[in-house]
This record gives sequence, structure tokens and C-alpha cells, in this order.
Amino acid sequence: MKFKCIETPAISHYAYVIADGNCAAVVDPRRDVDDYLAAAREFGCRITHVIETHRQEDFVMGSAYLARLTGARVVNGEHELFGHGDLRLGDGDSFTLGSLKICALHTPGHTPESMCYAVYEKGADIPWGVFTGDTLFFGDTGRSDLPGADKSVENAALLYDSVHGRLKALGDTVLVFPAHGPGSVCGSGMSEKPFSTIGEERRLNDVFTLDRDAFARKKGGERLPRPPYFRLMEKVNLHGGLEPPEVLGAVRFLGPEEFADARKRRQVFDTREPEAFAGGHIADSYSIWLQGLPVFGGWLADETTELLLVGDRGEDMETAALYLSRIGIDRVEGALAGGFGSWRNSGHPFRHNRVITPRELIDRLDEMQVLDVREDGEFDSGHIPGAVHLYVGYLEERLSETGLDRDRTLVVTCGVGHRAGLAVSILLRLGFTDVRNLLGGMKAWGACDFPMDQGGH
Amino acid sequence: MKFKCIETPAISHYAYVIADGNCAAVVDPRRDVDDYLAAAREFGCRITHVIETHRQEDFVMGSAYLARLTGARVVNGEHELFGHGDLRLGDGDSFTLGSLKICALHTPGHTPESMCYAVYEKGADIPWGVFTGDTLFFGDTGRSDLPGADKSVENAALLYDSVHGRLKALGDTVLVFPAHGPGSVCGSGMSEKPFSTIGEERRLNDVFTLDRDAFARKKGGERLPRPPYFRLMEKVNLHGGLEPPEVLGAVRFLGPEEFADARKRRQVFDTREPEAFAGGHIADSYSIWLQGLPVFGGWLADETTELLLVGDRGEDMETAALYLSRIGIDRVEGALAGGFGSWRNSGHPFRHNRVITPRELIDRLDEMQVLDVREDGEFDSGHIPGAVHLYVGYLEERLSETGLDRDRTLVVTCGVGHRAGLAVSILLRLGFTDVRNLLGGMKAWGACDFPMDQGGH
Amino acid sequence: MKFKCIETPAISHYAYVIADGNCAAVVDPRRDVDDYLAAAREFGCRITHVIETHRQEDFVMGSAYLARLTGARVVNGEHELFGHGDLRLGDGDSFTLGSLKICALHTPGHTPESMCYAVYEKGADIPWGVFTGDTLFFGDTGRSDLPGADKSVENAALLYDSVHGRLKALGDTVLVFPAHGPGSVCGSGMSEKPFSTIGEERRLNDVFTLDRDAFARKKGGERLPRPPYFRLMEKVNLHGGLEPPEVLGAVRFLGPEEFADARKRRQVFDTREPEAFAGGHIADSYSIWLQGLPVFGGWLADETTELLLVGDRGEDMETAALYLSRIGIDRVEGALAGGFGSWRNSGHPFRHNRVITPRELIDRLDEMQVLDVREDGEFDSGHIPGAVHLYVGYLEERLSETGLDRDRTLVVTCGVGHRAGLAVSILLRLGFTDVRNLLGGMKAWGACDFPMDQGGH
Amino acid sequence: MKFKCIETPAISHYAYVIADGNCAAVVDPRRDVDDYLAAAREFGCRITHVIETHRQEDFVMGSAYLARLTGARVVNGEHELFGHGDLRLGDGDSFTLGSLKICALHTPGHTPESMCYAVYEKGADIPWGVFTGDTLFFGDTGRSDLPGADKSVENAALLYDSVHGRLKALGDTVLVFPAHGPGSVCGSGMSEKPFSTIGEERRLNDVFTLDRDAFARKKGGERLPRPPYFRLMEKVNLHGGLEPPEVLGAVRFLGPEEFADARKRRQVFDTREPEAFAGGHIADSYSIWLQGLPVFGGWLADETTELLLVGDRGEDMETAALYLSRIGIDRVEGALAGGFGSWRNSGHPFRHNRVITPRELIDRLDEMQVLDVREDGEFDSGHIPGAVHLYVGYLEERLSETGLDRDRTLVVTCGVGHRAGLAVSILLRLGFTDVRNLLGGMKAWGACDFPMDQGGH
Repeated sequence: MKFKCIETPAISHYAYVIADGNCAAVVDPRRDVDDYLAAAREFGCRITHVIETHRQEDFVMGSAYLARLTGARVVNGEHELFGHGDLRLGDGDSFTLGSLKICALHTPGHTPESMCYAVYEKGADIPWGVFTGDTLFFGDTGRSDLPGADKSVENAALLYDSVHGRLKALGDTVLVFPAHGPGSVCGSGMSEKPFSTIGEERRLNDVFTLDRDAFARKKGGERLPRPPYFRLMEKVNLHGGLEPPEVLGAVRFLGPEEFADARKRRQVFDTREPEAFAGGHIADSYSIWLQGLPVFGGWLADETTELLLVGDRGEDMETAALYLSRIGIDRVEGALAGGFGSWRNSGHPFRHNRVITPRELIDRLDEMQVLDVREDGEFDSGHIPGAVHLYVGYLEERLSETGLDRDRTLVVTCGVGHRAGLAVSILLRLGFTDVRNLLGGMKAWGACDFPMDQGGH
Repeated sequence: MKFKCIETPAISHYAYVIADGNCAAVVDPRRDVDDYLAAAREFGCRITHVIETHRQEDFVMGSAYLARLTGARVVNGEHELFGHGDLRLGDGDSFTLGSLKICALHTPGHTPESMCYAVYEKGADIPWGVFTGDTLFFGDTGRSDLPGADKSVENAALLYDSVHGRLKALGDTVLVFPAHGPGSVCGSGMSEKPFSTIGEERRLNDVFTLDRDAFARKKGGERLPRPPYFRLMEKVNLHGGLEPPEVLGAVRFLGPEEFADARKRRQVFDTREPEAFAGGHIADSYSIWLQGLPVFGGWLADETTELLLVGDRGEDMETAALYLSRIGIDRVEGALAGGFGSWRNSGHPFRHNRVITPRELIDRLDEMQVLDVREDGEFDSGHIPGAVHLYVGYLEERLSETGLDRDRTLVVTCGVGHRAGLAVSILLRLGFTDVRNLLGGMKAWGACDFPMDQGGH
Repeated sequence: MKFKCIETPAISHYAYVIADGNCAAVVDPRRDVDDYLAAAREFGCRITHVIETHRQEDFVMGSAYLARLTGARVVNGEHELFGHGDLRLGDGDSFTLGSLKICALHTPGHTPESMCYAVYEKGADIPWGVFTGDTLFFGDTGRSDLPGADKSVENAALLYDSVHGRLKALGDTVLVFPAHGPGSVCGSGMSEKPFSTIGEERRLNDVFTLDRDAFARKKGGERLPRPPYFRLMEKVNLHGGLEPPEVLGAVRFLGPEEFADARKRRQVFDTREPEAFAGGHIADSYSIWLQGLPVFGGWLADETTELLLVGDRGEDMETAALYLSRIGIDRVEGALAGGFGSWRNSGHPFRHNRVITPRELIDRLDEMQVLDVREDGEFDSGHIPGAVHLYVGYLEERLSETGLDRDRTLVVTCGVGHRAGLAVSILLRLGFTDVRNLLGGMKAWGACDFPMDQGGH
Repeated sequence: MKFKCIETPAISHYAYVIADGNCAAVVDPRRDVDDYLAAAREFGCRITHVIETHRQEDFVMGSAYLARLTGARVVNGEHELFGHGDLRLGDGDSFTLGSLKICALHTPGHTPESMCYAVYEKGADIPWGVFTGDTLFFGDTGRSDLPGADKSVENAALLYDSVHGRLKALGDTVLVFPAHGPGSVCGSGMSEKPFSTIGEERRLNDVFTLDRDAFARKKGGERLPRPPYFRLMEKVNLHGGLEPPEVLGAVRFLGPEEFADARKRRQVFDTREPEAFAGGHIADSYSIWLQGLPVFGGWLADETTELLLVGDRGEDMETAALYLSRIGIDRVEGALAGGFGSWRNSGHPFRHNRVITPRELIDRLDEMQVLDVREDGEFDSGHIPGAVHLYVGYLEERLSETGLDRDRTLVVTCGVGHRAGLAVSILLRLGFTDVRNLLGGMKAWGACDFPMDQGGH
């Protein structure tokens, strides 16, 4: 058996290539499939199966494309939320890959169609490992609110039943191969470890350590933002995702003059760190740090407008375009040649915004409005006294709810300063003039032992 | 100005990326364009022009594809052998690239449409360099027989006039950037040096050191084989070549059983060195060493039959498929997983053939038939006394001309043993039983100071 | 926690980099440490600990060097066969790495000093994983004959006790990270799988499925060759191995003339596949295929003679030099520039030897002597009727035992043809003239269903 | 002939590998020699000669080290400023490299020992190319002030004589291979082009287009800063430079706590762009952007103090350490793990400084002090009216000369903002509180057509 886990960074997605004999299967591929093809070539195998655990919500799948390229069969389950598939497996059905047997398990809960796939070595009664999709993570389970926020508790109970009815019985020694790790928007609280087993999860994972009701209430009660681009992902992934653009990650570099002209009709995403954005940026650009693009690019991108990118390095622009492509955004029109420096040096006007340190804020807390743009759960677990709360994803549409005063100094905070940086850029677009990013965010604030309030929702 | 020469190995083809400001031009791109895109990205430029010096004969061009991908304009000349083009330049016409001026020169001879392009820095009267296509190589000029073997002398004279009328006057200091280097089938006798100038060529190149008549007779009198796939290249390149297959260089790996089954209806190309082929090979396979594929793959490939590949290493199979794609052969059905070793180990029958060293042959020359499969000119310059001559490319069709006896031992030779290895594999297919590759070929024979005859054609 | 397994190919050795916080530990490093440094940099960590499971026998360790380079502490056990160490841990002792606790287990058996190291996440009672060195492999255990062939059964029983007394109790869910995988000379019969757990091993591994006596007899009864270079490895590894040569894998390329001169006083290792060696080779060279170098290079290299290398590709020569360095052989004087082809083409004399296919042999078995050069256990499990047996490693010294006739045709076989190729090259040096490699070896012979005898030792 | 130019970025240094047959020569190697070894391996050659054009001042040479590693001979001239050498060539002496002849030319001027080396192909009377060191650049010549500022004009005349007496006569077609390109501190005004010839230089280069006196006055009158580390370079390069540190570019990553502790006794270099530095930085750190390190790191590094590095990316820290090593600074103690973000997030105090745009400054020019930190020549060619001038390299020692008021707002400018960023960081260390970087610098100011004054020195 040969095996490789291929991570998609920034969204903490794990695809797997598993091979035996001359045959390889790819589990949950993304849209740009070169890494999977390379792994199969390295193994001296051809890809015969593409396995889907479920219809992913947070990225564009590459199942249909990879199957077409290689002649592989798409393997998934019988539920109608798999809108395609060459080998539709019912619970307990199996197929062979070289000398391995791969057995399907229907495990609804995260989504109704979710499947797991147990891998048996030749002649074994007990599986060697199981691909668990978003059903079972390390130290967590997939969010249960996606099929409908009102059914979140109900679905969490269903997930509990799937884990206990299907996965637990596989045995403690079975290796767990989930579709996501820490940092994914498909769950929260995953542990950062490279491998785990069913037995290890039984000791540490809520779905095992809590009883059915307690688990359903806790998991079902999570309030995670649901990015609007999830809808598009679900739509395209119903049939195995989208084919990639012809040249992935390619960007056209535009000199400052061309860029200045082009930006009039386009959204500009500035991918630098929040310190650099504060030090200088093009007016009206959104500050979305590179690793945040596959999530917040999805939140902010207007479906009908083309995009321009700003960064410090040419290679980052390719990464940025690739990241956006992975969530279905192929509308990158170009990137600023030479990075922000070429803009700044060309004499074009640019803006800068102020920042503030925790130690500066604590002394002037009375004078300033504070806006916290983290998720509900993060805010509730501890925030700056008096802070107003609105999740960064809702800021453009629901700013009026906050009652913030455009003419007073506004300090914006989040975990460490990235989402706050995005919020600052949004607020500048909305007419605020003195908006300051609390660099280091609540992490630094907490490290300073400055006062915090709990709750709020 | 930024500049990069990108070589296509095995066919010694040179493409160039030249850039200034934010604009880049690519001269004579091949079909797989990733390296050009990467160079432009590294330069922080976008490709605005794709320049064709002529309708290439020895590989599939990527002009039309690269132009479509990038939005660049295709630049070439006014002759009808350029069957497409966005910017058709007459002799003396020019366009700008950043601060550079690029000036077109019509230089027929190698082919009627051939163009050169001189590059002028801002404000300069004398060009910095000139892209010479197949008109002027280092130490050689392009072959003049392609438009018609009977007009070879006439075209050589035309080429002489182009070089003297258009290139010489540019000045001695002008850098020369040709489309090919030593090893290309588009010329012979090119020197192995990295750079040259018009002035340097004036000292060393026949087209300058001979007078018009002498040059026309010498160049026009070359007898170079014309590979049959040139016709296809000319056809597809009339309109800027072919788009590449979706995943370049991808091969399906087939286990020995699948391979054994598949090979019944397909051609098999064995890409190993001739020693390895002699030591063991699959019956009926052609021995075409890896670097020989882009030429002899074109000679041997049957246009309607799919291909299978054999080698020792998985990565060579990708290279082989890529090499074949570059001459328009996208019919590679698969490669033997695990290399020849997996075949040999699986119990499938295989063959081996004998080899002979020069020292062994010299002692037994009387007993053996010798076949020399080099080009006419090579044969004439020195061959083993008594050797029969037929170019390897003609062997399958014209074997009967040789009068060789299938039942006697036959020694085959070429330059060093590669083409002889191919000839051995062809002769084994044609029913010869004791065919021996003279390893080291005429190079080793000569180094041993063994007797040679001259002439013959 | 961050984690990376770094394999040393050809000897199937696994080192591990495990990190937490800003600290990383490297388990069982080899002599060339760049990959470990790179992993630590990628993790943003510095290497604070270098952990030794035991004094390795099959490669030169890099513990002392890596510790010196990074300022890390060497961690090992209290036994005197660890001749150095900054943190000498007794059974049950532990240290911390970031938030992890790493606990030492003394597990003698493979060797007296052998240690395992269990990794606990913060606050956990049950370890997450365990580094098992050569004590526990996937599906196998380390050989027990190294401390003394006469005590092999006794040591196997000791190993059984270590596994049952120390590892079993850790729990079924614990991940197992051994120092070797299939192909290593430190064991036999390891399974090819990427991960395993204590529980998985309990089901499939002799050390768990047999009782103490049966295991001791079986494991202690293995007859594995003990390469002579093991002595040197043990000596240098007592103090944490050797520092690497200044430029690892660098070779001087020698033209044919220089090579011809140099080879008179040196051993020549030809790293090509056996087919290529048969097709042509330099007289008196040893045929050791590239992946076989780190074992058979050690068997054949004369400790006082410098080495020359032959291959087809320049990059292979670097790999070959690196492979040899990893077993302490830094005496590579040079490599043939241009590969065997440049020799063959230069007119220097060369040899070729015949090969034979299983189907050819079966028809002529009566006429020929057959020599089988595999290990005792392999021979006993099935060999060609009438075959003489002597392990390839003993051939130079004990040929006379075989009673083979130099003047009769001799067929040599092994598993697939690699070791037989080496044997052929040795026998040619010893004066045999018609020695033929049975390509495909006993694997192909078996696949053809040709007759075999069992036993013999 | 095989040829490769290997650039050392950030200092625009060009080394060359030239090879013929199986022999390669390296011209002017830097201290980290892997790229040269790799090129030689790629060529299938061994390095037999290491050629020095002169005793370099701006980086540590690797001649002696490379020669020791490879057994090559060091080739240079007879002057005593070459303090070592195996083959000391007088003017007109030559040696062979494969079929090439390499002929030495003594060309004093830039420095007294400076040599050029002309390369002749077999049998040629006219050289193919010439390695010109710092004697002749593309569009410029080496600075003539290094042997002594007072003899600058005299040395410029000497350089003129060398060029006219030795290089001009080689012929117009000869390719020129200099040791530096645009951006080097060894000259100014070099043209950005990839190749040039003697003839091309004759048209465009001051040393040819001016007469002897005019050239000597102009070249000798350049006022280029002389970085203090040049002295050290000259000292170590007298004997062929320094051996590299054991692991080049390795850095120890320190978490925020360790860094906070370590920085008390060390210099901190922050390698981010000036915008990012302005947005947030560790107090007392120097702002030296990554590409500026090999020059300004040399200006600022205290010879007895260890260094700490700050950046955004782990890989930049390796680059930074490598860049510093190339100018002999091996005292990098560590880098901030996780980049500036980890500092900011840990609750440690940090600073930020303000920036200003040209458009903001033009409206408030009266209120503010302006300091221009460019070189004399840059300042004289155009500066903001009223600006005070002091080169950034002299700021720490000669600040008092400027008469600047610590309590008033100070705007600092340079070309685009990099050197001004360094100046800001120095001034903050010196107690200024409101220092603002004019982002875009004089380039942006000029692009805005804002008023400028000329002259001043």
C-alpha cells in the first residue's frame, strides 16, 4: 500500500492518494489536480477511482475533472446530494483497489449524504484506516448547521448516531483520515496532530466523551458564520465540481498606469499583512491577507465584478489567484506589477491608516469606540469591555446595526489583527476616517492581562 | 531589458523571452508553454507579443495557443506561409516592446517566409541583437532543401542574399539569437557556443567565408534526411501550431499483464540505452533512446496506431510522452509500470540481442555483413570497408535494396550505437536473427584507428 | 504538534522530526542532515533534541553532528553501547518537548541498548505514539542475531519480553513509528503500509501472535547475512556517527582517458541495471545497481581502495556517492564523465556478457550449471532443481566451496536479477568466461510455473 | 563550450562557469559555492581553475575555498594585491581549458591588480569573449576611488588606458562578461541588458565616448559612499576569501519570549518593507529591507555584536542570513519564529511610526523638516526645496551636523522609501519621536511634478 496526504493550505483541507498494485484512488480532490497526478506517477500507478466523502461546501471539488482526465470512476453514495457518480455505494458496499478492500459507510449528520470509507488490507477483518470526510475530525466533528441552521441540534444527534453506529465499531486501532484539520471553516476546535485513531478519538472527542443529548446541544449550539460562497460551492459540487481554468494561478501583471485605470471598475484585494496595509495602500482596496483569501475572498468577492490583486511579491500573486480559483473565483483580471512599491513610487495617490497597540488602547479606552469583528463564540468567550460586536463578514451589510459614529476614533479588533485589518479596509470604504487596527488583537490583549468581559449573545 | 533563452532539449531548439517595462515577447514558442509563462511571471511582465521567425518544421509551435492564453498578438511576416498572424510585418516594419524597437527583416532562403527580427534599445541606431530563426546559426545556416530538394542550391543562394543583404549590414557587434543549436535536424555543423555576434559569424561561418556560388553549391549539396513528420509539422504550424493535450507528459502506467494485452495492437517504443535493450527487451519493440525520441519517434510512429512506452524509470516516461507531444504525437496509451524490470520479473517472454565491440569486429570482419545506417554525408566521410549503406529512417521500406542476408550474422553501425540500436530493433522485427550492434560505432572505430573507406554517394 | 517522517531510500530507514512550540526533536538521524534542518525550518522550530533509539548497524548516524550543528542535546539510554549522550534516560524517564512529554522505555532484544520513546500529548495518560527503533516494525521485529549469532534465540526471547512488557501496555491506539520499513537488512517480512498501531500489530505481528517460545525459535532461527561493514557502523555509531564529508554527493567527472588510467588502482562500481551491464561494461567492474549500493557497496568495497563509479546519468553519480557516504564510504575518487557511453565511444575495450531467459533455461537445464546467490531462507523456500547455493556476499571468498567449473556455461540467479548481476561481475573477475544472468530470476521462474525444489540448509 | 552566468542577487554580482571538454573554470566565485558545483556537475565537468579578476570589495570571495574543495588551481595576476594564487599570470600569459585558450590582461584602474581574461576558441585569433571584472561594465566602468579617494581621477585615467590599451584591441565582436550589473555599489549607471560586446560599449560607454581627460574627471569625480565593511572584504579577499559557515543560511528560530530576552544584548534587523515597519515594529530595531541587507547590513552591523532577524516569512530569514554571510557576517544568533506577527500577538510592546505621501507633504512643506539620505550625486540631481542632506550610512555618526530638531516633525526621504525607512529607524533610536517616511520618495515626488532644487555639493 502506498499513501499520501495532500493538504490544501489556508483551508486546511486534506485529500488522500491511496494506492496498491498499479491502481490508485484519490479521496476528495480539489479542483487543481496536479499534485494528485504527481503522487500517482511517483507511485507508478494510474488513478482508477475518485472517492467523494460528501458534497464539500468550502472549496470547489475536482472529482469530475480528475475522473475525466484519468478515466477513473467516481465513487460516492446513493443519496441524491451526490448528483453524479459512476459507482454509487450503499452502506456496507465495497470495491477493491489492488489487494485492498474499500468499504462504504453511510454517516449522515454533517450533511445528509456524508459517507465514510474503511480500508481493509487483504484478508483483514478489521480495517486499517477510515476516510471520515467531515464526519469525524481529530478532536472534533463537522458542523451540523449547514443543512439548515434550525436543524442543527437534530443533525448533531444524527451525526452522533453515525459515529457510534458506524465508526466506533470499526475498532480502536483504526486510523482516522479526515477531510479537514485545524483552521477549517467546517469545524472548530480541531487538534493539531498529524495522525489519530478511533481509539484516540474515543478518549478525547466530544462525540465520544459526551452523551447523545449533551453532544447534540453543544455541537448544535455552535454559531459559526456561513460564508455566502458556500451556496455556490454546493451547487457546483453536486456534480463533482468545476474544471480548472486553463492556466491555474496565472496572473497578468499590470503597471501602475494600467492598474490605476483598471481599478475603477474592479474590486482590489490587497494580500499583504495588516501592518503593511496600514503603512500604505490603494484607496478602496480590501485588506485580505494571503492565507485569508480562500475564506474572506469568498465573503467579499462580488460575483459579477472582476478582481485585481496587490501584494509585495510576484509569486504571491500566483498563490492568491490559485487560492481564489479553489473557491471558484476565476475572475482575477490582473495584479499590480512590482507590488505596492511600484504604485507608491509612481506618484499615484495612496492612503495609510493608523494602528494602535494594546498598551496604547488601555490608557485611552474611554475616548474610543471599539468594534470586535470575531465570531459570536469568540466574542462571548472574552472581549474588551464596552466593545461593540459584529462579525466581519456582515460588516458591509449590517453596519448600521452597530450605531458606530463615523466621526469618532474607532478601534477594530479580532483575534490577532487580520480580520480587523479587513474590517478597517471596509470601514474606510464606508467613510470612516480614523479607524485603527488593534494589532495583536485579543490574543495580545489577553497576554497583557487586560480586563475582559464575557458573554453577549 | 530582461531576457531568457529557453532550450527545448533533444531537438536543440531555442525560444526566447525578451521583456521591457511590463511587456514581454516570446520568440518561436513550442507547444508546451509553461516555461515561457514562468519566465514572464519572474520578470513581472505579461506576454504581449508572440513572434514567429518562420513556420517551423521539426516541432509543433505554440504561437496560437500562447497568444490565446495571454491575449498576446502574433507577430510574423506577410508571406502566405504564415497562415495566421495579428501583426503582419513587411521587411523593415517595426513595433515597440516597452522601450525597445523590434524591426522585421524578410530573409527567405531556409524557407520562403523566413523572417529575422532586430532589437534596438531606445534611441539606438544599431541593433543590440537579432533573432535569426533558421536563417543564421552559430557557424552554420538553415538547410535549404526543405522547400524542395531540387531547389536546394537556388534556395541556398537566396539565403546567401538574405544574410548579406539584411543581416550583415546590422553590424559586427550585433548579438545573434538563432532558433537552433548543435544537434538539430534543421542544420548540421553548428558550433557549440553559448553566444555569438554577426562579426564573429563573419569570421567563421560558410555563408560569410565562401563566395555566393561556393556557398550555394556546398549548402545546396547537403543531403540531409527529411523526416516524414515534417509534413505534419508544416501543416499544423501554418496556423501557429496545436494546442497541447490537457495534461502534458501524463502517462498511464500499465502492469505487465495489461501491457502484454495492450501491446498486441500498438507500437512499443523502448527508450533505454542500446546496451540495456540488447540485454533484454520486449519482442517487436523499437529501440529509440530517450533523447532520440523527438526525431526518430517521428520517423517511426504510425499515424493511426497508439503507442506504448518502456523505460527504466517512471519519470523518463513522462519525459518521453512530452517529447513525443512536442512533435504532435499525443497517442501514448501508456507506459510499462515498474519499467522493463517488471516485465522481466513477471515471467513474460522477452528477447535479447548480441552486441559486438570494434576490436571483436576487426578480427572477424570477413565473416560478417556490415550495415551502416548513418546519413549519406556521414557515410561518405568514412565507413567500414565493405559496409552496406542505408539510412535508418528508410530501413523499414527499403531494406530489399540492401541485399542483406537474413541468415548470416549482421553487424549494424552508426555514429556511436544509438541509431544502430534502432536499426537492430527494426531488423529483428523484419526477421533477422543474429543482428549485432557495433557499440561505440564509427566514433570508437575511428578512435581505434581501424581502416575506413571514403565516399560512396 | 508537527511531525515529518524522512525516509532514507534504498535502506528503508525512517528518521522522524517531531516538533511542538518552537522546539523540534529528530529521531535517529542519518549523517547528511539537510532534510532534518529543512523540516525544522519549515516548522519554524529549532532542533533542541536528537534522539537515538539504538546504535544503528546499517548506516552512519548523524546524531553527534546534528547536535553539534544545532546545539541540541543527544538523548539516549543508560546502556554502555550508547557511548555518548547529553541526556541519558533510564527506563521510565522522560523529558518535555514544547507541550509534549517524551518517555523512554528500555527495550533490549534487537540489541542490548535498544530504547523506545513514547510521546504523550499534554495531560494525556495514554501516549499518542511511540518511536520503536528496530524493536517493533510493521509486521516484524528487528533481527536478534546481531549481538552474536549464537545468542539469537535468547535475544529474540528478550525482545519478546520487551515488546510485551513495555510496548503492549501502552495501548492499542498508540501509533508505531519504527526505524525501518520493507527492504531493510535489519529485518525481513515487514509489511508495506504507511502507518500502524500497537493494536494493529497485536493482530498481525509474530511477536504478538506467537507464544514466547515459538517466537524466539522462529525469529532466532532466521539466517540473515551479516554484511561486514556492520562492524564499522557499530564502531562509529557508538559515539553518534561520523560528520559528513564537506560536500556530500559531489563527484569528480573523469573523461575516458583519465578514467582508464585511474581504474588501474581502484575498484569500479557500475550502477546500471543488469541488462545494461550485460550489454556492455568495463572489464573488472562490479555490477551494483543504484538502489543496491548502500548494502552491496558495503559488502564489496575494499576499505583501503578508492572507488570509481559508472552509470548512464550524471545525477545518478551524485546519488551513488551519497548512498555510499551514508554507509561511511567517502572514498569515491570520481565518476566516468558522460556515462558508459563515453567509454564505449572512445574506442577503449569493453566487455559484454550473455543473459538467459527462464524459457531458454528450462529447455537447456541439463547442459548448464546453475548458481543461486540468494540468502539461505530464500533458497530453501524454492530453487531451481540442481542449483548450487552460495550467498552473493560470500562469493569472492568462498567460491571454491561451490565446485563450479570455470569452463562450463554457468547460469546465475537470484530474486530478479540484481544480485545475480553482481555475482556475474564477480565471477567474470574470477575467470569465468560464459556466465549468464537469469534475468527475472526466481520471481520470473516461479511465474512461469517451472519446477522448483525446497530446502537445502 | 558550456557557459553559465550565476548572479548573486541584491549585490548584482556575476560569477561565470565556463567549461570545455571535461574541465570547468569558475570566474570570481562567492563564498557559497553550491551553484558553481551544480553547474559543473550539470556540464559533466570538474572544476580545474578558479579565476580571480581582482580582489573584490563588496562580498567575500570563495576562490580559496572552492579551490580547496575541488582541487582546482587559483588563477590570478602577479600584483601583490593578489595575496595567493597557484597560477600567477602576467599580462599576455595564457592557459588552456579543454580546447579553449584563456589569456590574461593586466588592466589596472579600478584597482591596481585588476585583470581581464580573454577567451579564445581553438585556433582563433580573435577572442570569443572577455571576463572584465570591474574594469568594464555594460555602459559603465568600475569606480576609481577605492584605492584612495584622493587618487580617484588619476586611477580613472589609468582605467581609461587599460580599456583602450588592452580591451579595445580585442575587437568589436568580443562578448563582454563583467563582474557586476546595475544595482551594484561598485559602479553606477550600468545599463540593464543581458549581454554586450566591445563594439556595443564603444558606442555607449563613457570610457569610449569621452576623451581621456573628460573621462578621468567625470569618473574620478563621482562621490560614491564607501561602506565601512569594504575594509574587511579587502582583508579577507587578499587570500581568496573565507570558507563559508558550516550550514549556510541556517537560523535558529526563537519564540517571542526568547527573542525578547536575546534582543537586549543584540542588534535587531527588521527585513520587511518600509510600510510594514511603519505599521508595527520592535523598538530599537533597524529597518533594512531584505534586498538591502548585503549593503546596509554591512553599514550597520557592529562587528562585535550578534544579530537577530525579523521578517514575515521563515524562508526570508534563511535568505537574510545567507545575504549577510556573503559579506562576512556570520553572527546571526536567531530569527523571530512566526515573524513579526508572533511578537505582536504575544502582548510584547511594539512601536509604529507615521508615514507621509508626497501629496500630503506638498501641502505642509512649511511645517516640516525634511531630511534627504541619498548619495551626494542623487541629491544634487534634484531634491525637495529646503531639504537637509546626509547620506544614510553616516547618520548614526554625523547626525549633529544636520542641525535637525528632535522635537519637530521630521520627514525623511530617499529614492523610493527603503533607505529612508532605515533612516527613520536610526532616528527613532536616536530619540526622534515624530519621524515620517516619505513613501515613494523622490521618484514619486518627481512623478508628481512637485518642485525640486538642484545641486548642493
